[in-house]
Amino acid sequence: MTLANPTLVELTRADAVESEHRGRAVVMRSTGETIWSIGDTDRLTYPRSAIKAFQALPMVASGAPKAFGLDDIDLALTCASHEGEARHTEKVIEFLTKLGLSLTDLECGYHWPMGERATVDLAWSHHRPDARHNNCSGKHAGMLALARQEEWDHHGYSKADHPVQQAIRVCIERCCDTDLVHAPVSPDGCTAPTWAMPLHRLALGFARFADPHRLPTEFLEPAQALYSAATRNPFYVAGTGRYCTRMMMALNGRAFLKVGAEGVYIAALPEWKLGIALKMDSGSALAAEVAMSEILHRLGLPISPEERQPAIRNRNRIVTGEIRAVGSAFADIPNPD
Amino acid sequence: MTLANPTLVELTRADAVESEHRGRAVVMRSTGETIWSIGDTDRLTYPRSAIKAFQALPMVASGAPKAFGLDDIDLALTCASHEGEARHTEKVIEFLTKLGLSLTDLECGYHWPMGERATVDLAWSHHRPDARHNNCSGKHAGMLALARQEEWDHHGYSKADHPVQQAIRVCIERCCDTDLVHAPVSPDGCTAPTWAMPLHRLALGFARFADPHRLPTEFLEPAQALYSAATRNPFYVAGTGRYCTRMMMALNGRAFLKVGAEGVYIAALPEWKLGIALKMDSGSALAAEVAMSEILHRLGLPISPEERQPAIRNRNRIVTGEIRAVGSAFADIPNPD
Repeated sequence: MTLANPTLVELTRADAVESEHRGRAVVMRSTGETIWSIGDTDRLTYPRSAIKAFQALPMVASGAPKAFGLDDIDLALTCASHEGEARHTEKVIEFLTKLGLSLTDLECGYHWPMGERATVDLAWSHHRPDARHNNCSGKHAGMLALARQEEWDHHGYSKADHPVQQAIRVCIERCCDTDLVHAPVSPDGCTAPTWAMPLHRLALGFARFADPHRLPTEFLEPAQALYSAATRNPFYVAGTGRYCTRMMMALNGRAFLKVGAEGVYIAALPEWKLGIALKMDSGSALAAEVAMSEILHRLGLPISPEERQPAIRNRNRIVTGEIRAVGSAFADIPNPD
Repeated sequence: MTLANPTLVELTRADAVESEHRGRAVVMRSTGETIWSIGDTDRLTYPRSAIKAFQALPMVASGAPKAFGLDDIDLALTCASHEGEARHTEKVIEFLTKLGLSLTDLECGYHWPMGERATVDLAWSHHRPDARHNNCSGKHAGMLALARQEEWDHHGYSKADHPVQQAIRVCIERCCDTDLVHAPVSPDGCTAPTWAMPLHRLALGFARFADPHRLPTEFLEPAQALYSAATRNPFYVAGTGRYCTRMMMALNGRAFLKVGAEGVYIAALPEWKLGIALKMDSGSALAAEVAMSEILHRLGLPISPEERQPAIRNRNRIVTGEIRAVGSAFADIPNPD
């Protein structure tokens, strides 16, 4: 046996725990005060897609939305890991058209949609996926918008040394108060770089995103615009049945949530000026959702029992177990008021 | 920080470990001697689909294969979690026809095929999934074969109190030398029961499966028949590109391998009369594969570097990291000769 982050989420089957998910999480005020944490939150963590709002901030701050006539749905898509449903992909094409660009300018690669339903719909209609279906295509459209607005050659915009990515790096460094020059960096699933940072720096960034007066001045209004666009258009941040979409719909403007690959989740809560960042050690997305639900519930937000303790159903819809937070791990989350 | 099973597998991205998978594993001789173990192998573990060979044994021992003209592919399917490809589903229909039964007799429920490719192919051809596509449909056909051979009413054969499942329970108890009457039991994904047992009991069962003279006498020839059928027809145990299929093809009769849901894997190695059972705490199937590859490699089997350390590629096929065994966890696996 070795030392490890605590178990945050368990999966049960009948009378026994079948699987368990360890992890780390932190809740921070925009002042930098940690109000709760668990596990090793100093550990370097790749935020993956959870950082998308900060990848969009320099583009919004550049004036691109006004220059190209981008609307709130376009802005929501820049923060999205979307499901590749027709409503998503049609808007991505319109977004590119506003920039005077097209699908071939996207450098994100392609994949069948993340969700089975969207994959089946696409195949049923005898279409194959292209870059528009990549869950990051909205983010990439936003990166292209920054390049167009700054009149940078947009070719290679996804590479770490391109001015677009350098502008994003500096934005993240300033918003999250962290050094990325010496941080591990890797192409993400969509090839744009992802820089690792301590988990508490990610929480700080989203606490400030929830309280944008704490961000560098030029990002104040852009952060407000992105928060508003995403929370008013949660379908475009994820898609049908997805957790980010469900939760932002249910919380009706009280929280911005975003998943990242390999078990990362962030949230920004303006009413308390709080940021939350968590990472499941195993990379489980479902466990990350249950952990996030538990934190939001303990902070006082109205979270349904189904989000806190989802039932596991088998192929005949029989309930065989549940996924549940380990109560003791979250028991000392304080009242944020 | 709390005590935990050791990390067996890490996922890396650039210069950093991104995710980690803890787990437990045991390698046992058919005599019951543990030659290597790691983590808490006493812990009750649901074997899930890894137990399928033992769910098929009573049917083979009943004489059903001869009575109904079942061939080796039918037997391989009874041990399978298949991909739902056309070659699988056509054989399942033939299997049911041999029994004088049809699709509506299967009680496994249905789902879109586990693999994206098979799902896309099915949707592209404007078909919807039914029970034949359930990855357990071959196992269920085998359960129906036992009911027909014993002239039991096959309706409700998937319920824990049906004679079919009671015969399977007694078979597992005797082969794995474990008590299941007082064990946690739950409907599996396909509704047939799965009983939890200590991980080392699962390893013992498959060590005896590798050395069937150690099984109760009536299961000796049936175990040989199932081993031979599965290892000679590995496509029918899983499917295109799947780990069980790849490994059994590459090892060419030297090993029987089978995945179980939630990060379980078993193997049976006749040349050394060894059984292996492992369970990743997180339930990760990919981590279980890498851990199994590492154990087989350290025991002396020829395992390719790609199976031991698979590269992670992004949507543009760029290598972003790898999944690798933690060498120190496996360093003391002995030479089995």
